[in-house]
Amino acid sequence: MVVETKVSGIIIDPISNSPVLILKEIGGPRILPIWIGVMEAAAIAAELEHIKFPRPMTHDLIKNIIEKMQCILTKVVITDLRDNTYYANIYLEPKDGEEVVIDSRPSDAVAIALRTGAPIFVSEEVLEKSRAMELFSSIEDEEEREKIRKKWEEILATLSPEDFGKYKM
Amino acid sequence: MVVETKVSGIIIDPISNSPVLILKEIGGPRILPIWIGVMEAAAIAAELEHIKFPRPMTHDLIKNIIEKMQCILTKVVITDLRDNTYYANIYLEPKDGEEVVIDSRPSDAVAIALRTGAPIFVSEEVLEKSRAMELFSSIEDEEEREKIRKKWEEILATLSPEDFGKYKM
Repeated sequence: MVVETKVSGIIIDPISNSPVLILKEIGGPRILPIWIGVMEAAAIAAELEHIKFPRPMTHDLIKNIIEKMQCILTKVVITDLRDNTYYANIYLEPKDGEEVVIDSRPSDAVAIALRTGAPIFVSEEVLEKSRAMELFSSIEDEEEREKIRKKWEEILATLSPEDFGKYKM
Repeated sequence: MVVETKVSGIIIDPISNSPVLILKEIGGPRILPIWIGVMEAAAIAAELEHIKFPRPMTHDLIKNIIEKMQCILTKVVITDLRDNTYYANIYLEPKDGEEVVIDSRPSDAVAIALRTGAPIFVSEEVLEKSRAMELFSSIEDEEEREKIRKKWEEILATLSPEDFGKYKM
């Protein structure tokens, strides 16, 4: 079972200082935070903010390759979460051939999906596994954990469609 | 007219501190330095040093997309140098179709070529335009220019096939 999501924004994890991609369930309250690299965050943020570069960035090149090959990116799916690593698949449909499935990091998958307009799905299992509020259970100091959780709750509560691309490099 | 080159290594520009990809003419003395981004340098260096990551990095994903689409990357060509910007094309051959040409930054083109084993060509014009020793003409202080030129000459003179991937992140 998969659930369609949309990119809600990118925020900075107050603990690790690394970018976190926030996917939000369409028609439901659940969110999926995915810790990603700075460059991947930049690739996603650039698209969210409609920033145009004079030369094709790497994910623009991927879009161009897919289009020139006359393929369609039908969807991307965040499939799994194991050992703090998120897994995704991208689904490509050639003009005259069978759909193929390609293993990808979620950040690449989402950066490409945003450029091609492909829908972003998350497996029900991953959504359940990663509930944001449980993410901080590894922090041992209870007071500290509560503080960070509150901060996150505040951030997440304020996210709205207008937050698309709030993240600036 | 194009000339086949190979990646000689990545070095750090002592002026700008940014990574410089060094392509070397096969069967000739000329080199082409290309200023590239840090992440693109990392993508090239990882391949030169045969570093394996647990998950596919962005250029590994591109390689996988090309292979799954049953296409062959026949070559990449550094085609132009205008206003301090380098241009490249990648040539993709579908299984049952005509070769297509896709605009790319040279760093992406080289990162993909290294992963697929495709040859890297440079247009004769670009090689002539960019002769390394002329690159420093913009530095006004003649003494400073000479110093940097000497430093570069030393670096370039020592480059050998063993320098593949000397660059560490």
